[in-house]
Amino acid sequence: MKVDGQPRRTIWPAESGRAVQVIDQRWLPHRLDIVSLDDLAGVVTAIRDMWVRGAPLIGVSAAYGLALQMQRDASDAALTAAVETLVSARPTAVNLAWAVRRLQRVLQPLPPAERPAKAWALAGELADEDAAVNEAIGRHGLPLLQDVAARRGGRVDVLTHCNAGWLATVDWGTALSPIYHAQAAGLDVHVWVDETRPRNQGASLTAWELGQQGVAHTVIADNAGGHLMQQGRVDLVIVGCDRVTARGDVCNKIGTYLKALAARDNGVPFYAAMPLSTLDLSLDDGLVDIPIEERSAREVSHLTGRDAEGRLVEVQLLPDGSAAANPAFDVTPARLVTGLITERGVVPTEERALRAIAA
Amino acid sequence: MKVDGQPRRTIWPAESGRAVQVIDQRWLPHRLDIVSLDDLAGVVTAIRDMWVRGAPLIGVSAAYGLALQMQRDASDAALTAAVETLVSARPTAVNLAWAVRRLQRVLQPLPPAERPAKAWALAGELADEDAAVNEAIGRHGLPLLQDVAARRGGRVDVLTHCNAGWLATVDWGTALSPIYHAQAAGLDVHVWVDETRPRNQGASLTAWELGQQGVAHTVIADNAGGHLMQQGRVDLVIVGCDRVTARGDVCNKIGTYLKALAARDNGVPFYAAMPLSTLDLSLDDGLVDIPIEERSAREVSHLTGRDAEGRLVEVQLLPDGSAAANPAFDVTPARLVTGLITERGVVPTEERALRAIAA
Repeated sequence: MKVDGQPRRTIWPAESGRAVQVIDQRWLPHRLDIVSLDDLAGVVTAIRDMWVRGAPLIGVSAAYGLALQMQRDASDAALTAAVETLVSARPTAVNLAWAVRRLQRVLQPLPPAERPAKAWALAGELADEDAAVNEAIGRHGLPLLQDVAARRGGRVDVLTHCNAGWLATVDWGTALSPIYHAQAAGLDVHVWVDETRPRNQGASLTAWELGQQGVAHTVIADNAGGHLMQQGRVDLVIVGCDRVTARGDVCNKIGTYLKALAARDNGVPFYAAMPLSTLDLSLDDGLVDIPIEERSAREVSHLTGRDAEGRLVEVQLLPDGSAAANPAFDVTPARLVTGLITERGVVPTEERALRAIAA
Repeated sequence: MKVDGQPRRTIWPAESGRAVQVIDQRWLPHRLDIVSLDDLAGVVTAIRDMWVRGAPLIGVSAAYGLALQMQRDASDAALTAAVETLVSARPTAVNLAWAVRRLQRVLQPLPPAERPAKAWALAGELADEDAAVNEAIGRHGLPLLQDVAARRGGRVDVLTHCNAGWLATVDWGTALSPIYHAQAAGLDVHVWVDETRPRNQGASLTAWELGQQGVAHTVIADNAGGHLMQQGRVDLVIVGCDRVTARGDVCNKIGTYLKALAARDNGVPFYAAMPLSTLDLSLDDGLVDIPIEERSAREVSHLTGRDAEGRLVEVQLLPDGSAAANPAFDVTPARLVTGLITERGVVPTEERALRAIAA
């Protein structure tokens, strides 16, 4: 999608073929920082410390990390070690393990000498595939917005939580892809953007990419979405997801569950956009089976923004001595999810339908 | 309650009898600023710009504002004008109008010469009465926590939203009063403190006053409460309220409704602590009848915290050009509220019970 009017992706290979370039998303929306990662350790840091984030982008980043490591040491031992290091960098995102294991399966049988070139090519294919998958999610999601426009006339108001836009993927995004398609189709679409504390991915990333693309949007505190739904000011909720179980329980950014409850209470359709790679058919009850990452309390107690002089400043919000807790994800039970928007179409959250579409 | 180990109230008359002193809550938790307000305009600014906040404290502050104006001009015209100015300073809080009209009813029939002294005395009575009411709310709420402790043993976990502690009142607080009573009664009580974006009253005020009083607490993003309830880590939700209708619909800080939905979905009791002055029997359907204050977008787009050098710095969170919306309250339908903790006991959200207890 566009930055300053120019098409961009979130990750791309350096011309040298020995590094990968990414947008360091920690400084958005205040600064567009592009960094070059040239080894496994760099990629792991970028994933763990969220220079790159979003399940699909993490997966592609990890693939490039593995490819970079193969350039340095393509032995069996190095391959195994790199896979383990990458998989443990972020425990919740299923795409990370999915992408890394996929490369591992192809690389393992190859002689070490062939691994670097193959890994590099596979990482690139994964990136292109992600962009294509997300484009398809948008195509399949578009009718949901067109239906609202046809039924109600006027503006279509979509609420989204966190950032499941192109910044969370290689291109297009998942939850925002139907919105970009709606814009392209000429619909009058407006997005309510949840701030998404504590890391503010909505306020900083979703607002930024919608603004760069020229999509009308309004940032709200995470607290406000229920009220807006009560007032009939939300037509549709679309969120991303980090992991979806066989029954359709959706693990996504903390706070998603609260919006799903409000959507149900107000008769607002609630969709999760899901590349099929996010579906984990080995899991059933998301509340029991999905480990929830507990992140640093400092993400709650401190926050970085831009001061009046344009400098990025970290400020403390809490009194000295107050503890903070920071569960990063929650699980929205399938019963609250109207449907999943996948690259093969929209499916209800029913195990049979999910197994069929994934087959 | 205590600050640095010393008992304090949020508002008290200056010794001169010609000014009222308040804690300027905008700088908490980073700085304890006590300011003297010596005229109506000063009090209106303090209410409107939230140097003082919380429905009960706003009411008492307004009463002192009226008393200060009577010292300058006790004419009928001045009385009427002051009442109107004060009532419109914050449209949602019913206590403001309640307190001001109460003084007006007493002052109007008096000769202007008697109004200043009477108004001053009434404001003081209102303050003492508020402290007594809140003490009683705590006494009536305490058994709810004792029941959990008796049934489950071990720690009692209460979740609260915004600040309905002593800082929102003259003393004791409403939602936090049962917690302070539980602490005094020797219960092992722990409070999950919702940060409460966009003004962060939880992170800055509730965390600060609980810390000053030595009550165990953990600050969480507003997004986290539903997840904690799913995990069985919340025994009870207690919030304050700004206005309650005859049927028991609860208007409170934006985001309260989302916590009530999560409490209902997880079988967690959800209480609102309500001085009976907050009950507005003239209203029925809160979603239709209660006007919701829309506050400045800047409260969402910017935030003030303490930098590494201890300075208070305002930082921008949003990209330039992104709009923000800021509804300050929402309405939790009576069906989601287990009961209301009042100074006369705990009542269910049923019109007959509410009319009876208010009679």
